[in-house]
Amino acid sequence: MFQSPVILTLDLLGTFAFGLNGALTATRAARLDLVGVLVLGMMTALGGGVIRDILINVPPATFGDGRYLAAAAGGALVAFLLSVELERYTRLITVFDAVGLSVFCVTGTSKALDAGLGSVQAVILGVITAVGGGTLRDIAVQRVPSVLTSDFYAVPALVGAVLAAVALGIGIPGLVGALVPAAVAFVIRMLGVRYNLRVPRTRERGFHSRDGDEATD
Amino acid sequence: MFQSPVILTLDLLGTFAFGLNGALTATRAARLDLVGVLVLGMMTALGGGVIRDILINVPPATFGDGRYLAAAAGGALVAFLLSVELERYTRLITVFDAVGLSVFCVTGTSKALDAGLGSVQAVILGVITAVGGGTLRDIAVQRVPSVLTSDFYAVPALVGAVLAAVALGIGIPGLVGALVPAAVAFVIRMLGVRYNLRVPRTRERGFHSRDGDEATD
Amino acid sequence: MFQSPVILTLDLLGTFAFGLNGALTATRAARLDLVGVLVLGMMTALGGGVIRDILINVPPATFGDGRYLAAAAGGALVAFLLSVELERYTRLITVFDAVGLSVFCVTGTSKALDAGLGSVQAVILGVITAVGGGTLRDIAVQRVPSVLTSDFYAVPALVGAVLAAVALGIGIPGLVGALVPAAVAFVIRMLGVRYNLRVPRTRERGFHSRDGDEATD
Repeated sequence: MFQSPVILTLDLLGTFAFGLNGALTATRAARLDLVGVLVLGMMTALGGGVIRDILINVPPATFGDGRYLAAAAGGALVAFLLSVELERYTRLITVFDAVGLSVFCVTGTSKALDAGLGSVQAVILGVITAVGGGTLRDIAVQRVPSVLTSDFYAVPALVGAVLAAVALGIGIPGLVGALVPAAVAFVIRMLGVRYNLRVPRTRERGFHSRDGDEATD
Repeated sequence: MFQSPVILTLDLLGTFAFGLNGALTATRAARLDLVGVLVLGMMTALGGGVIRDILINVPPATFGDGRYLAAAAGGALVAFLLSVELERYTRLITVFDAVGLSVFCVTGTSKALDAGLGSVQAVILGVITAVGGGTLRDIAVQRVPSVLTSDFYAVPALVGAVLAAVALGIGIPGLVGALVPAAVAFVIRMLGVRYNLRVPRTRERGFHSRDGDEATD
Repeated sequence: MFQSPVILTLDLLGTFAFGLNGALTATRAARLDLVGVLVLGMMTALGGGVIRDILINVPPATFGDGRYLAAAAGGALVAFLLSVELERYTRLITVFDAVGLSVFCVTGTSKALDAGLGSVQAVILGVITAVGGGTLRDIAVQRVPSVLTSDFYAVPALVGAVLAAVALGIGIPGLVGALVPAAVAFVIRMLGVRYNLRVPRTRERGFHSRDGDEATD
């Protein structure tokens, strides 16, 4: 496992950023009261790690760690108090969100490998850690999850998770092996936002009007 | 843990009430067949406890207990058979729902403390037990979850959970220590309904048209 | 537990079929990129088994088994590449989906019994295994889950699960005891699609005025 004060600091910063981002997104999608903003912010910040730990079948770690709860609630509270002011700093929020994404894909992969899972599973869990919280948030406020529709959101997380699995596999010392994959994921994410990069889509056709999945004949 | 015939009776009554309430809510939101009504009623009645047990990482208890399954299915079945008649008794249904909410926040907190979690986590799990089932129901029928939008739904659960944690912490004997917090939560919930109490909201502004959470610049 | 090459083959075929079906359904509901199609296909294919294992409180088995991951991803990838062509073969896709449904209700029940759960719980878990993945898919793309609205989708799964529990209870040898319930579930599902069979609904209040319409041709 990657363990260092730097990683812990980044992880808490990512949790704070996700709490803030989740709460802000929520207040845009629906006008919520204080309880709703706190719930959504904490769900966004802690959801990915909780899903990962449930899939590994261990008690959710961040949920039991007061520092993570405080970082998540703190981010949501700041968003609640300063929602109007923060609207101006969308670029800063994007950066915070990218920090969370980058750190979580690396720490998620690392934790899954520690639990004895194979590297493919660990990479999947790394991506789930990074995008899971935002997915819960989007489902709660009735949006199609970003990971499904938003180009270049899952891709940087996937790259970061693969690099982290490789680094741990060949034994690169903790801090470098964690920071480099996270930095690469961060740069890819920011380039994706800046240049609006896209992933291939299904070819178009006009079958959007159909809606049954049971395809009655 | 709070263990007594009174608590068990209340817990089963709450489960029945949530099953009935969930099934009725569902039939209002979308016209469902018998299977759908049963699924939604049981999901509402058992969902909160199941989420709590998954987070504690123990096998879901109510799911394995025939009495709870029967109470949940019974409530849903009554709702299916009497849906037209029950439309008139909305106040009674609100009372039943408040019973479930009040009992579940107390028993959920108690169970989490028994499992060795800290008191902050136990209080959060108590609230999750109380509101989790209704949240699953709302997501399934495409509504924004009540806990996010409905004033004074999470608040009484939070008060009940905190009081239960305090009562167990200072060693107040089981029955009193459980019934008083549940009664307080119940009264707060009913006062909230009666007087339409509100939780502070974010300040208003016209940013509902924005929709990206990634805030491209 | 039912264990045989035939069962494993069917299970992998069902996983492939669910991956394909989930990805196709997703591309109809919203135009997704490659990442979104893969995520939704795999969620549909593996979601039911993962929910079952979380409820049993064991590490998700299919998630850790490379063959299942490959079958699920393969189905989703085929759907992504051939989405336009596959639109013509809706009947074939319905058959594949029915295979998945039939196999999963039987293997899910079997696995739950192996884990020591009671037969009522095992039957419920069998149905959850069969319909859980599609439910996650529908929630992600903002549709009311098929299991709630679609007549005769949960019913064949329920019949198959009950028959599997009975077969295992009275000790009918593995292959027969698994294949007969799966075949019965498959036939019921296909008859339901062909003849548009219906489950009783709640009586109408305002909108229409039909009373519990059974099997309207």
